[in-house]
Amino acid sequence: MSSVKPFAIKPGGVIGIIGGGQLGRMLAMAAARLGLKSCIYNDGADAPAFQVTPLQVNAPYTDRTLLTGFAQSCDVITFEFENLPAEELSYLASLKAMRPGPKALSTTQDRLSEKQFVRGLGLLTAPFAEVGTAKDAALALAEMGGHGILKTRRFGYDGKGQAKVQSGEEAAKAFTAFKGAPAILEGFVDFAFEASVVAARGADGAFAAYDPPENIHENHILRRSIVPSRLTAAQAEEAKQIARAIADALDYVGVLAVELFVTSDGRLLVNEIAPRVHNSGHWTIEACACSQFEQHIRAVAGWPLGDPTRHADAVMENIIGAEADAWESLARAGALHLYGKREARLGRKMGHVTRLRPKS
Amino acid sequence: MSSVKPFAIKPGGVIGIIGGGQLGRMLAMAAARLGLKSCIYNDGADAPAFQVTPLQVNAPYTDRTLLTGFAQSCDVITFEFENLPAEELSYLASLKAMRPGPKALSTTQDRLSEKQFVRGLGLLTAPFAEVGTAKDAALALAEMGGHGILKTRRFGYDGKGQAKVQSGEEAAKAFTAFKGAPAILEGFVDFAFEASVVAARGADGAFAAYDPPENIHENHILRRSIVPSRLTAAQAEEAKQIARAIADALDYVGVLAVELFVTSDGRLLVNEIAPRVHNSGHWTIEACACSQFEQHIRAVAGWPLGDPTRHADAVMENIIGAEADAWESLARAGALHLYGKREARLGRKMGHVTRLRPKS
Repeated sequence: MSSVKPFAIKPGGVIGIIGGGQLGRMLAMAAARLGLKSCIYNDGADAPAFQVTPLQVNAPYTDRTLLTGFAQSCDVITFEFENLPAEELSYLASLKAMRPGPKALSTTQDRLSEKQFVRGLGLLTAPFAEVGTAKDAALALAEMGGHGILKTRRFGYDGKGQAKVQSGEEAAKAFTAFKGAPAILEGFVDFAFEASVVAARGADGAFAAYDPPENIHENHILRRSIVPSRLTAAQAEEAKQIARAIADALDYVGVLAVELFVTSDGRLLVNEIAPRVHNSGHWTIEACACSQFEQHIRAVAGWPLGDPTRHADAVMENIIGAEADAWESLARAGALHLYGKREARLGRKMGHVTRLRPKS
Repeated sequence: MSSVKPFAIKPGGVIGIIGGGQLGRMLAMAAARLGLKSCIYNDGADAPAFQVTPLQVNAPYTDRTLLTGFAQSCDVITFEFENLPAEELSYLASLKAMRPGPKALSTTQDRLSEKQFVRGLGLLTAPFAEVGTAKDAALALAEMGGHGILKTRRFGYDGKGQAKVQSGEEAAKAFTAFKGAPAILEGFVDFAFEASVVAARGADGAFAAYDPPENIHENHILRRSIVPSRLTAAQAEEAKQIARAIADALDYVGVLAVELFVTSDGRLLVNEIAPRVHNSGHWTIEACACSQFEQHIRAVAGWPLGDPTRHADAVMENIIGAEADAWESLARAGALHLYGKREARLGRKMGHVTRLRPKS
């Protein structure tokens, strides 16, 4: 049962994409494959996605005039960048169909509401506490047993707005360093490994999930995703059902990713929900009939979902910062994707390489 | 041994592509994957490739001013459309590196010089004769045994500029209908089936060929390409060696396609050389690690060639004219590609679908 009114965009129609990074770029390329156009809205001229479509708006995310023109030029609006201010989200939603809708975005923008939502579905998360003051932070840490991670409730990614804390003093200091931004303290989870599930829900409520990869992070940035993962078949199925419960409850349309902690006793804890295509799903471009990018475009365009079946084993490795200088040897290493970023800053995702092997 | 001076274009560089149809579109998308930009030059605003890059020139192919600006904005020039006038080809080649070079293009632009070149390599073709007058046409037909195809020497594609003739009178009439354009008469070949070989030669002389597909035409338009084909392993290898001989002799850089007639007694006759990516290679997008489009970009950018190994069986089917109206069911049928063409004219290639099966 979906409260979203299903409609389909015909070939030649325009997908409006908020955010012009590599995810927007790969979404636009997937749309083009299907004969759909993309209009990219990005704050800043040097956007990877601006290189792959002539339809583009370079303006702050709060520019109502240009947001209006953007909305009018599109048949549907979607996101590669979910952290639009809530007011602008509602404004855009008042102008044009938005997939996923504002409810999904507002729920997942805030770590506190996200975790409460996930718990409300009967799913597991790490222990957490709301932190509004430095004193809260210190008190919460004591409750969590003295180990935890302080995270701002909003606008964090790739480890930004996060600090590992091991004493009340550290917790209070970290809160102050975040300039008093509302935060949560998460208890430390001694997980065996990290996994994620990338899945799609269609405008008609149809659901399709990819095989959950195992993810390896370095310095809070995804280094590598591996399929098949070490999840058992039952755990992989459980992961897909977690994604399905979340997508259904959010009345979600599009691709979402659910990051999971897998504990040594086999439990799956929901770490984060990303209401968009996800770095841990890039291997689907080569290893599946329909990539996560095409799947998202199909969903938001109101098309039938594609086949998420994996036909090969895969390892996706990010190319970070100056690693991109080795493009010539990377071009021999597997399926190479470079994102068109001019400057190879420290920790910046410049591209990725996917290596396939016959399915095990 | 290559007389082309090898140079490599770094990520961020610009590939200039002459022609803005679906081949240019898919080339530009493959370039983007590798972090390269594309500038499309097309005569006419409604070009499929204009939808996938902001760098574009809409001007006649004879506009020296805009050709100059185009050449200056690119790091290398290549083609999806090989029928540029010879003068403009030389002009462009004087401004910027061109891959493939003008020699390859001028040789293959003219059916007579192409066939003479192929014969000169010791390869087989259908019998042919030069036709300069209506009388020539009638005489040549008699020599060919009364069955033949009259073809203009230049600017033919998808059956345009071709006429099947079965009497001296028909041959003379067809020549007149072509407005006296220089032509050749080809003897009728009673072939068992048609095949093609799509292959690449790198700037360093490296060579890589895809498995030759079997091609089925309807109304002179490619309907379907199938891999594996009915070629024996020895014939498939022979086909690749034919492509290699041609590429080496033309000092070719990029992807080319050689269309072949396969006779019932097992001989391979060269029908046509296309100095570009080719419709019969579209299945490589899904069935190979490196598609023909990426392979062409790698070659013209001076990058190492990619792996042409086929990992699945494939059938590629063109979507022609009004067949594209069934986009919703086609989206369920396999890997769907639509080219962004507004008008579904009769005989117009609107897209294609590739269906994969496990490798036999």
